[in-house]
Amino acid sequence: MSLLVTGSIGIDNVTSPYGRAEGVLGGSAVYFSYVASFFVPVRLVGVVGDDFPDDFRRVLAKREIDLAGLEVRKGSKTFRWTGKFEGAMNEAETVEVDLNVLAERGPKIPPAFADSEFVFLANTHPTLQRELLSQIRSPRLVVCDTMNLWITTERESLIETLGVVGGVILNDAEARMLTGRMNLIEAGEEILRFGPRFVIIKKGENGAVLVTGDHAVGVPAYPAKTVHDPTGAGDSFAGGVMGHLSRERKTDFATLRQALVRGTVAASFTIEDFSLRRLERLTRNEIEWRVEEYVEMLRFD
Amino acid sequence: MSLLVTGSIGIDNVTSPYGRAEGVLGGSAVYFSYVASFFVPVRLVGVVGDDFPDDFRRVLAKREIDLAGLEVRKGSKTFRWTGKFEGAMNEAETVEVDLNVLAERGPKIPPAFADSEFVFLANTHPTLQRELLSQIRSPRLVVCDTMNLWITTERESLIETLGVVGGVILNDAEARMLTGRMNLIEAGEEILRFGPRFVIIKKGENGAVLVTGDHAVGVPAYPAKTVHDPTGAGDSFAGGVMGHLSRERKTDFATLRQALVRGTVAASFTIEDFSLRRLERLTRNEIEWRVEEYVEMLRFD
Repeated sequence: MSLLVTGSIGIDNVTSPYGRAEGVLGGSAVYFSYVASFFVPVRLVGVVGDDFPDDFRRVLAKREIDLAGLEVRKGSKTFRWTGKFEGAMNEAETVEVDLNVLAERGPKIPPAFADSEFVFLANTHPTLQRELLSQIRSPRLVVCDTMNLWITTERESLIETLGVVGGVILNDAEARMLTGRMNLIEAGEEILRFGPRFVIIKKGENGAVLVTGDHAVGVPAYPAKTVHDPTGAGDSFAGGVMGHLSRERKTDFATLRQALVRGTVAASFTIEDFSLRRLERLTRNEIEWRVEEYVEMLRFD
Repeated sequence: MSLLVTGSIGIDNVTSPYGRAEGVLGGSAVYFSYVASFFVPVRLVGVVGDDFPDDFRRVLAKREIDLAGLEVRKGSKTFRWTGKFEGAMNEAETVEVDLNVLAERGPKIPPAFADSEFVFLANTHPTLQRELLSQIRSPRLVVCDTMNLWITTERESLIETLGVVGGVILNDAEARMLTGRMNLIEAGEEILRFGPRFVIIKKGENGAVLVTGDHAVGVPAYPAKTVHDPTGAGDSFAGGVMGHLSRERKTDFATLRQALVRGTVAASFTIEDFSLRRLERLTRNEIEWRVEEYVEMLRFD
């Protein structure tokens, strides 16, 4: 049940109607691995600069997150992102982004991680996604994310990546941009034609849609009143989904449905506070209770 | 289990990426009553001009819709609306609107309808909503809709209407505009302070949220691939909700939850074709089958 994630590790500045957090821990691989570690041990692969604070490493080390794949590159600087949420907070406005070490060569998968069974390739250049994946021997399930930039500028490469993964998790705007289909079920089916067996389309406060060859399942978001910082919600969602699949060691439709619930619930915690603050206080029991509450909310028989 | 609806009856021109329908039957009270008639007999109250086609009356007369409250006003013209849906079709763009008879005095509730137990006041001037309601003796549940225009121009009157209804069904943009709250659960709770016991916030393709004093429930839309004309989806949703409540003769939380499912499913049929075309072919069994399918989709235990 080894779960590996590759993705960004960063230092964020975030402003929302509820306040501001400066110089806080962020990045797709961070949110993903932190959440997934509530389900299974996680192997994190990513690269930071030598300015990466020890405190941040300690936050990750508190969980069962194997940091053997966390490369600290001398003379380089950690990825930094400054973003702002306004109004309904459905989308982050990027105020500033310094790729720093992410603009250099990618990280390597440590040999000890080459036997990973479940792999999540968080958003990065699709060619790098395949390069990283090629270092893993025979994964059981590979799932990737992507972003508007690669859909526009690296479409061919992205489609090649979609051809080698078992699943895709992306947001509604990306699914529409990638396929030109406005109906999300149709967009999902279009994406399946590139290769994956399932597509999960994230819709923020509006939940998510799972599309497989035979089925389409929509789920609402957990009805959250406390939404202070949506940063990392999508990666937390993916962490819950992949965490559950890895723990169950299954990727069939029934397990995917259950994974969708875990992803939804995981994201609902992340957004309650800035950065990883809520996740740092989170317990396995709280996740289970909220899963039960959510499942009960959706029981109509 | 008498269910009465007051609202618009109109002649629509609709364009969507899937085609165009000209001079077709539309209006909030029409969609509402057509859907609700699959659950209980419906009493329709509204006014049209003497240009209202007999064919349209026959469409309504095919169902158990009592047209005693359908006033045909001599020398007046029927309400006309021309709208367009583009892209994700989440919002209609109004191209042209001729209020015609709707700009004159409102309809009257026929004395025979004064004993109605369940009442839906579809969107119209909030003062007219109260005037109509005052002609009904002791309704068991009154639910109203509204629109951005009244929120902006008739706020005081609208708040007065909210003080005399048991429930509100409105869309997300309206809920946010009315309360200034971006979080929909908070917006719902804010609206409860004006008087109603429950608020249902419609989110189109993103489902709906039910907020009561004690609970918040989110549901996804039925995952529909065939979406040709969203006109009337919201009123169909309301028709399914009120139809179910009227049939069950209950307004408790458990019944409201079940009503939410019926509303969601009803709307999913309406949008499959232009105007009332899909509803005209619809059967009670099809509704039941889709309800079962939808409930099954949301079973995660």
